[in-house]
Amino acid sequence: MKKELNWECSIAGKNDFFYARVPGNAQEDYAAAHNWGDVNFADNCEMYRGLEDYGWIYRAEFATQEDGTWFVSEGIDYECDIFLNGSHLLHNVGLYKKIEIDLTKFLKAENVIEVHIAPVPKDGRSGTRDEAAQVTKPAVSYGWDWHPRLVPTGMWQKAYLETRGESFIFDVDVTYTLDDALENAQVCFDITGGKMPEIRLYSPDGKLLYEGNETEIEVNDVELWWCSGQGKPTLYTYEVTAGENIICGTIGFKKIELVMNDEAWDEPSDFPKGRSVPPITVCLNNRRIFAKGSNWVAPEIFYGKIKHKRYDELLTLVRDANMNILRCWGGAVVGKEDFFDLCDQYGIMVWQEFPLACNLYRDTKFYLDILEDEAVSIIKRVKKHACHCIWCGGNELFNRWSGMTDQSLALRLLNKLCYELDRDKPFLPTAPVMGMGHGHYLFYDADIDKTVHEIYGNSRCTAYSEFGVPSLCSMENLRKIIPPELIDEPAPDTPWQTHHAFGAWDAAGIDTWICRSVMEKYFGVGLTVEEMIKYSQFLQSEGLKFIFEEARRQQPYCSMAMNWCFAEPWITAANSSIISYPAEPKPAYYAVKAALRSVMPSLKMQHFLYTQGELFSGELWFLNDSGKAADTKINVFLMYDDKKELIITWDTGVAAANKRGHIIQFVVPESDNKCMKIRLESSAGNSEYSFLTVPPAEKEDFSIMNG
Amino acid sequence: MKKELNWECSIAGKNDFFYARVPGNAQEDYAAAHNWGDVNFADNCEMYRGLEDYGWIYRAEFATQEDGTWFVSEGIDYECDIFLNGSHLLHNVGLYKKIEIDLTKFLKAENVIEVHIAPVPKDGRSGTRDEAAQVTKPAVSYGWDWHPRLVPTGMWQKAYLETRGESFIFDVDVTYTLDDALENAQVCFDITGGKMPEIRLYSPDGKLLYEGNETEIEVNDVELWWCSGQGKPTLYTYEVTAGENIICGTIGFKKIELVMNDEAWDEPSDFPKGRSVPPITVCLNNRRIFAKGSNWVAPEIFYGKIKHKRYDELLTLVRDANMNILRCWGGAVVGKEDFFDLCDQYGIMVWQEFPLACNLYRDTKFYLDILEDEAVSIIKRVKKHACHCIWCGGNELFNRWSGMTDQSLALRLLNKLCYELDRDKPFLPTAPVMGMGHGHYLFYDADIDKTVHEIYGNSRCTAYSEFGVPSLCSMENLRKIIPPELIDEPAPDTPWQTHHAFGAWDAAGIDTWICRSVMEKYFGVGLTVEEMIKYSQFLQSEGLKFIFEEARRQQPYCSMAMNWCFAEPWITAANSSIISYPAEPKPAYYAVKAALRSVMPSLKMQHFLYTQGELFSGELWFLNDSGKAADTKINVFLMYDDKKELIITWDTGVAAANKRGHIIQFVVPESDNKCMKIRLESSAGNSEYSFLTVPPAEKEDFSIMNG
Repeated sequence: MKKELNWECSIAGKNDFFYARVPGNAQEDYAAAHNWGDVNFADNCEMYRGLEDYGWIYRAEFATQEDGTWFVSEGIDYECDIFLNGSHLLHNVGLYKKIEIDLTKFLKAENVIEVHIAPVPKDGRSGTRDEAAQVTKPAVSYGWDWHPRLVPTGMWQKAYLETRGESFIFDVDVTYTLDDALENAQVCFDITGGKMPEIRLYSPDGKLLYEGNETEIEVNDVELWWCSGQGKPTLYTYEVTAGENIICGTIGFKKIELVMNDEAWDEPSDFPKGRSVPPITVCLNNRRIFAKGSNWVAPEIFYGKIKHKRYDELLTLVRDANMNILRCWGGAVVGKEDFFDLCDQYGIMVWQEFPLACNLYRDTKFYLDILEDEAVSIIKRVKKHACHCIWCGGNELFNRWSGMTDQSLALRLLNKLCYELDRDKPFLPTAPVMGMGHGHYLFYDADIDKTVHEIYGNSRCTAYSEFGVPSLCSMENLRKIIPPELIDEPAPDTPWQTHHAFGAWDAAGIDTWICRSVMEKYFGVGLTVEEMIKYSQFLQSEGLKFIFEEARRQQPYCSMAMNWCFAEPWITAANSSIISYPAEPKPAYYAVKAALRSVMPSLKMQHFLYTQGELFSGELWFLNDSGKAADTKINVFLMYDDKKELIITWDTGVAAANKRGHIIQFVVPESDNKCMKIRLESSAGNSEYSFLTVPPAEKEDFSIMNG
Repeated sequence: MKKELNWECSIAGKNDFFYARVPGNAQEDYAAAHNWGDVNFADNCEMYRGLEDYGWIYRAEFATQEDGTWFVSEGIDYECDIFLNGSHLLHNVGLYKKIEIDLTKFLKAENVIEVHIAPVPKDGRSGTRDEAAQVTKPAVSYGWDWHPRLVPTGMWQKAYLETRGESFIFDVDVTYTLDDALENAQVCFDITGGKMPEIRLYSPDGKLLYEGNETEIEVNDVELWWCSGQGKPTLYTYEVTAGENIICGTIGFKKIELVMNDEAWDEPSDFPKGRSVPPITVCLNNRRIFAKGSNWVAPEIFYGKIKHKRYDELLTLVRDANMNILRCWGGAVVGKEDFFDLCDQYGIMVWQEFPLACNLYRDTKFYLDILEDEAVSIIKRVKKHACHCIWCGGNELFNRWSGMTDQSLALRLLNKLCYELDRDKPFLPTAPVMGMGHGHYLFYDADIDKTVHEIYGNSRCTAYSEFGVPSLCSMENLRKIIPPELIDEPAPDTPWQTHHAFGAWDAAGIDTWICRSVMEKYFGVGLTVEEMIKYSQFLQSEGLKFIFEEARRQQPYCSMAMNWCFAEPWITAANSSIISYPAEPKPAYYAVKAALRSVMPSLKMQHFLYTQGELFSGELWFLNDSGKAADTKINVFLMYDDKKELIITWDTGVAAANKRGHIIQFVVPESDNKCMKIRLESSAGNSEYSFLTVPPAEKEDFSIMNG
């Protein structure tokens, strides 16, 4: 029996209580109570900085003296002390540990429970994300190039009273062993608590397969859990009951490995000889899969408020984009149960990182103790989900800006804990590891004078774990964040910059993420905001399309591609997300969705910009990652002005994998219409690729207004 | 009170006992009893193949019924059952576990203890080293390119009876914490057994520092343990006594890390961006050190017979060669206590690998259980030694011929165990890891037409973990292994091949390790054995000299160089060892010793072979890895015929690190003497570098008989 509580909250010491949502975040409720307005608007987010060094007191009153009354919270963010009627019951640090306290001996007729939350923890006082270097809170809250500095705390997970009798079931951990043929499973129920628990196991279509109190059950002719695009995400269900207590759950039977990428054992070849790259090919149920997906961040700044509906609208978009994997990035909070439940159901494989990102998480006993506690909580919860496939220590830890190494104790500890608690899942210390490619985040890199076509068309990676192209959000969303008087003049040091259009990424100067100079290069100076929206979204679409398809063309040496990033936790003016907050697909979403079709015609372009009269050269491909044989006939058209000229027809022949086709070549025609397209039409669907052209005389100074 | 036993041994089931040495190996004693002759001679080693599938019974009789009589062995190789008077006492698998059995309740007036050892364990029946893929026995025993197929088993460590009273001390584990300044240590004695044990701690010069029964002791003004060349290998000593029991040991205070190599954080620079290389720079007591040394293999085929004297003669040579590190290779047996004791005393840092090498050690429960047991025994024993600096999972595991990866459970398990039991030491999963260079093993590689000068002079590695150049052994040693009638005609399919002169390394064809074609390239066809000995040893000396000095010149990006290999376990006809069995330095030993002097003049040559009249170009260096400032004046001479021509004089100026000097250039003179030398003379010692020359007309067909 669970009983909800009515919470209120105050800044510690101020005794000025306001209504508090649980789950939620203190700062959000404080702002609501004080009419701060939409956090998305203008510079509103900056007001929260002043709240960082306050503690918070959550308080709820209730009247019960029933024996076996427990206080339960699935996580409190971050350092807290819990009191009942003034008695100190518990001190905890970390947001992932389930808190369970038997209140019986402290209860009176009327009770007050208080949760005191310490100010935002900071390692040093740099004012930057460095302050997250000794905590398990999401580093992103401390400020990122697409996230404001805004560090929520509070009761971010459910909290309730629960009456627990003798036969209460504390936990059910279901594990299984599949035979080599993946046909039969030995299922083991490890039940904590529960007197004489009874188990019921149901088939995916709801048929009772087993009822009784054996904790080891044989399941024959198992239907396996498959990721989207490869089969059905089949789930069995179970109930464990003891008295009036019941715990329900699902089981998805699968075998998951990271296996060596094709050709990777052949390298290195020269002396002095190094090692071969680590394996990154997802092998699900003994089938090698091209993992295609996106990088996932928490979809709200105030991650406490995320509920099922919010996850569902986004994860439906993920599945519909032909994606089969999400990399849950280490800078963000680990998802709530609803997130993993939905990924289970939608067949979305989850690469889950521990909460480390872009920092040097030092080897102190203080930190390692917290990390161990938190990691154990994360592992025990997440490993139960069919969707969960890969553990990873965190984001970009083996690069200069983090400064961690293979010797860092935090990562050795995480490897050890995963080995102990979930050893059949792959463990990566970080991303990127050797062989993987991470970044770039621009359509055109002026430093090296290359577009994505030239960068990725000549790279060789086992996986592309992050890559992005920024774009502006829609005018409708811009109006929600930029005051009307500023909307026509994107400028630094205004809410445009607060929302990451300028100075987001220091290394690239003030021009990120708006990348105005790139748009000016292709489309001329003096662009209006409407034009910048249109052109940036056009470049994002063309860029991501190229990269995803190129990664697929590099199969099997390459076996994974995940763009940075899927959605965003607030409205950014410019960002590489393909979903604008809260769930509004940008044009690039549809381009990516098209580029991830299992079976499709594809073109490898060499460049984005051609001089008219120059030779265009591109390689035809027939992409097929379905694992099933297919064939088609591809008609290739050049489209410009109102013309649609057939260039070639390619009969692909039958293939159960990618097939490389002809190299098409033609002289770029003269035209006033500087944006031209190659269109591939086939019974397996159509694909379109744009390129820009410039008349020879104009090469140095041109603009395209009809792109 | 320890009591030695007199052992005899028989093939199981044959009841034909012979005298058995303990420690020792059954096969060696059997051969001695049956007059098989020196295992080094001719094809004698092949006779042992017939013994592999026999079990062995060790037996000893003794008369005591004293209470508290234990049977103790520090390791039995490999799978054994122990019986006392017919009663089965223990079953064990693995050679590293200490065996301790209280015999009291089984004793009679007259007793027989038997140790039954199972036949050689084999995974499959390939007849190759693949058979070692599920065992912790040294893989090398199953056959290697410098080791015959000969798999010893038996009681390879000490075994004895011991009377243990109530106050017996089972174990003393001493750990310490140094303060940040490395000035004061908190020493902790973890004593198992021993009633009211008393501790005495002595300073390095024998002064009593502490006496009493506190188990946590503060030591102030600590004298640190340093590796050879950087300071003194200072050892404190302790005694723990309880009643008549005493355990003595040493403590060497040090801080050991692997830190990022200089410049390594700057890489990679391009997008898509990978990770930076893992750190491999040894940082001892906060000082970055260039680690220079050698790869160590067990110095006997019958590793059970290795005693203090054998280790001492070799480790003295290691220290005298200016080496500060040994990589104890994973294919060999882990050293006995005497090995580590001597390394403690001589200041030789030990990189210890677990017993995995060049195999796919599969993730079976069978293997992982044994590995865990064995690894725990190895870690607990080796970690106590001051000399021990690095743990490593094993040899070349992340390359095709092994097929293991970062996901292999054996390596994740080893990381976990090292983290739990000895986390302050670095752990490497294998060698090479990313950034390290492993191999080559030839002076001249015909496939790419390059000598070591061209290969290493253009490589860029953080460490050179293995590299070798083969040579023949001395005529004196050859006479011990090759029958007189075959000695003048090195040929395949004779004892020359048994002793690795031919077909040692399949990938390179029949011509390894004698490399006759290389000698013929430089010195002409029709060479006598004496000439081949001389020329191969000359090339080995010049080759290793170049590689070691080049690795040092690549400091600080490169921070480690270890040749393959130091000594050898039997007499090879040709091998890359620099010590011929048992402890006979080859000329290359002295070349390496010279190349590893802390402060020295050095020359980077570009090629080994010049046409007379061609321009010679080489770069002068002043090498200094002492950490102390030094300077010198270097006179550079060209020496040929009887001439000694001064080319240049370089006043290096003061430097506490390496210093790059001038590029010397001259036209190679004409001479009948085709071997010329550059000689560097300085107050910091002299160095010499040979190169071969050929008159223009003779370039395609020449020979040098006076090299």
